[in-house]
Amino acid sequence: MEKKKNILVGQSGGPTTVINASLAGVLSAAFNCENVGQVYGMINGIQGLMDDQVMDMNKVFKGDQKKLENLRVTPSMFLGSCRYKLKDPAVDESDMKRVFEILKKYEIDYFFYIGGNDSMDTVDKVSKYAKEHNYDIRVIGIPKTIDNDLMEIDHTPGFGSAAKYIATSMLEMAHDTYIYYMQSVLIVEIMGRNAGWLTAAAALARNEYNHAPHLIYLPERNFSTEQFIKDVRENLEKHDQVIVAVSEGIHDEHGEYISAKSTKTDQFGHVMLSGTGKYLESLVADQIGCKVRSVELNVLQRCAAHISSATDVGEAFRLGEKAVDAANNGHTDEMTSIRRVSNNPYRVEYTTVPVSEVSNKEKKVPLEWINEAGNDVTQELEDYLRPLIEGEVKLEYKGGLPQYIIRG
Amino acid sequence: MEKKKNILVGQSGGPTTVINASLAGVLSAAFNCENVGQVYGMINGIQGLMDDQVMDMNKVFKGDQKKLENLRVTPSMFLGSCRYKLKDPAVDESDMKRVFEILKKYEIDYFFYIGGNDSMDTVDKVSKYAKEHNYDIRVIGIPKTIDNDLMEIDHTPGFGSAAKYIATSMLEMAHDTYIYYMQSVLIVEIMGRNAGWLTAAAALARNEYNHAPHLIYLPERNFSTEQFIKDVRENLEKHDQVIVAVSEGIHDEHGEYISAKSTKTDQFGHVMLSGTGKYLESLVADQIGCKVRSVELNVLQRCAAHISSATDVGEAFRLGEKAVDAANNGHTDEMTSIRRVSNNPYRVEYTTVPVSEVSNKEKKVPLEWINEAGNDVTQELEDYLRPLIEGEVKLEYKGGLPQYIIRG
Repeated sequence: MEKKKNILVGQSGGPTTVINASLAGVLSAAFNCENVGQVYGMINGIQGLMDDQVMDMNKVFKGDQKKLENLRVTPSMFLGSCRYKLKDPAVDESDMKRVFEILKKYEIDYFFYIGGNDSMDTVDKVSKYAKEHNYDIRVIGIPKTIDNDLMEIDHTPGFGSAAKYIATSMLEMAHDTYIYYMQSVLIVEIMGRNAGWLTAAAALARNEYNHAPHLIYLPERNFSTEQFIKDVRENLEKHDQVIVAVSEGIHDEHGEYISAKSTKTDQFGHVMLSGTGKYLESLVADQIGCKVRSVELNVLQRCAAHISSATDVGEAFRLGEKAVDAANNGHTDEMTSIRRVSNNPYRVEYTTVPVSEVSNKEKKVPLEWINEAGNDVTQELEDYLRPLIEGEVKLEYKGGLPQYIIRG
Repeated sequence: MEKKKNILVGQSGGPTTVINASLAGVLSAAFNCENVGQVYGMINGIQGLMDDQVMDMNKVFKGDQKKLENLRVTPSMFLGSCRYKLKDPAVDESDMKRVFEILKKYEIDYFFYIGGNDSMDTVDKVSKYAKEHNYDIRVIGIPKTIDNDLMEIDHTPGFGSAAKYIATSMLEMAHDTYIYYMQSVLIVEIMGRNAGWLTAAAALARNEYNHAPHLIYLPERNFSTEQFIKDVRENLEKHDQVIVAVSEGIHDEHGEYISAKSTKTDQFGHVMLSGTGKYLESLVADQIGCKVRSVELNVLQRCAAHISSATDVGEAFRLGEKAVDAANNGHTDEMTSIRRVSNNPYRVEYTTVPVSEVSNKEKKVPLEWINEAGNDVTQELEDYLRPLIEGEVKLEYKGGLPQYIIRG
């Protein structure tokens, strides 16, 4: 009888609400697969692995469907994370030697790493090193990032849920804003340093009665504070309340971040970064003088699992399952991926792509999906985004709060 | 046959997610009441009323149960709001004369006003003026405020939902924070200028595995930045990640707001208020030097109806119904109220209280519900809060977003 395959799976980079859904997908497929033996989890990613921080996932999850379901809907990383770039073995082989020492100790056959473009660099390095040294191991990346900036995938797991949170919050803030007589401006600062996908998702809040956000600024286009004030003034002529969605990463034509303009020192001489939204708020207060407020959605964008997209959670789960399938079929140095087959009805296929096409690259919003004035997105972009936020996840609640799990 | 009673209902002050539930309660009771004729809504509260901004609620809602249900779960104010203090008729009778001109025009018998302590001042003034001038009208206030700072009521509608949002967000941010090896501090700034109820609600995020927030600071106690830094340092010795819940209204022993310490002028000489959280963030960065982030929950606390408390929505609805009942029974110059009968099982009674005991007063967190060190709340406070966030509201979704309604 052939030796059963052992799996090692880890999570890396910044949180999303569905990165545990991918982990649950790996576990579910593995537990249902006759040729898989032991599943191990690396704690705190590749960094923890080198410290031999490894846990037995069979012991915690096998046969416990309820726990697995709970994992599927829990935000952030059950296994913890790291932001560690493996040393290039051509320069310094120490990291890679240590990694393979551990892989041999646990007799690992499949190495799965759930992460974004930096994490895919780890996948690529481990897999290439294995090939060069004739280690028989399959190395598969599983994508995640709220930023939707990975190449070779229609959209990234984690993005749809963040987009649903942003659009829902935007709609609710519009209701909050519309109640007074007076003129006012609300500026909502959204994550995405270089790619404007998340900010664009604010457009999904628009419906039959809600036209907010009235202005949308993505980092793909240079930002002019003069044009911004002009845009706001023009909109105030049409609407009493003007709502603006703005990426944290907007910058002027010299590439200088708008947020950097608000760097100040306080009474003790400490440098304080007030952020893009706060800066634009002060600009409106000073140059237009109406009531103005700024809101920074901050980390809730990536962890508010109580409003995850069911489409997103389902896809993240399937991409985890797909990794087991790909490894069983002899693939390595690849990332599991999503191809959109049709938009209406929305249908996708699960596939794999070479990880070298993904690692260390960035997919931005195409300029043709931004309007000419650079202050809105096109209908094509909305049509691309809409299916990704569809569907609600049923959570169990206890004491008024969602029931999540941690590693303990 | 006796003339049927006409109702005028308005909403005032800042938004909550359940102020429309109270409106729906008024409408539902009125439509089911044989002696009620016409229900009118005042648009933009008492201020709009004086401009004769009045709408026919029978036309929009009567016989449309689905629309009424939709109203019940929509955040903010369907009728719009105002922040207007009626002129004291002893000094200047013009406002009151105008109000009663409109009331006579529509032959109003019952006047209902949904709002906080400022709005109860309007209720008190209108009702006393009516009595003095022998106008036969019943004036009833219906309470609402996320701040939970009204007297003569166990807790205010709107508070439970805001508390549920805060506790849920706190739990999700804890998951977001726990994933890295390194030491970090997260500071979460919560609404409540003078009363710490909302900040205290962050404590509800604690469960078997989550001890965050590790520190809680309410405005009921003076705040010392030195003690704060000491508290954070001590907690960093026990936990790698320390999470702090802090009220926007904390102030030093001289009554100066901590947020005021971060007032700065930018490069153009504009005054910029960075807020309490941002200020404490810079303090930790400077004096402790570990990774630190601040999050301001901002307006989402009062409008995130997608995570409303079902207990809260139900109670707000009942308080609206109760107003119709109270007016029918001859009450005036009163506010509908909640009395807690038992905590386990949680059970309340609906009653009315004299509005003069409520208007322009403020209920703060009792000092005995804050720990001696002034950096946490007691179990008694948590026991008081817990039932208020229980239960989830089923919303309809369309295109991935909750279905709400507006006045149109």
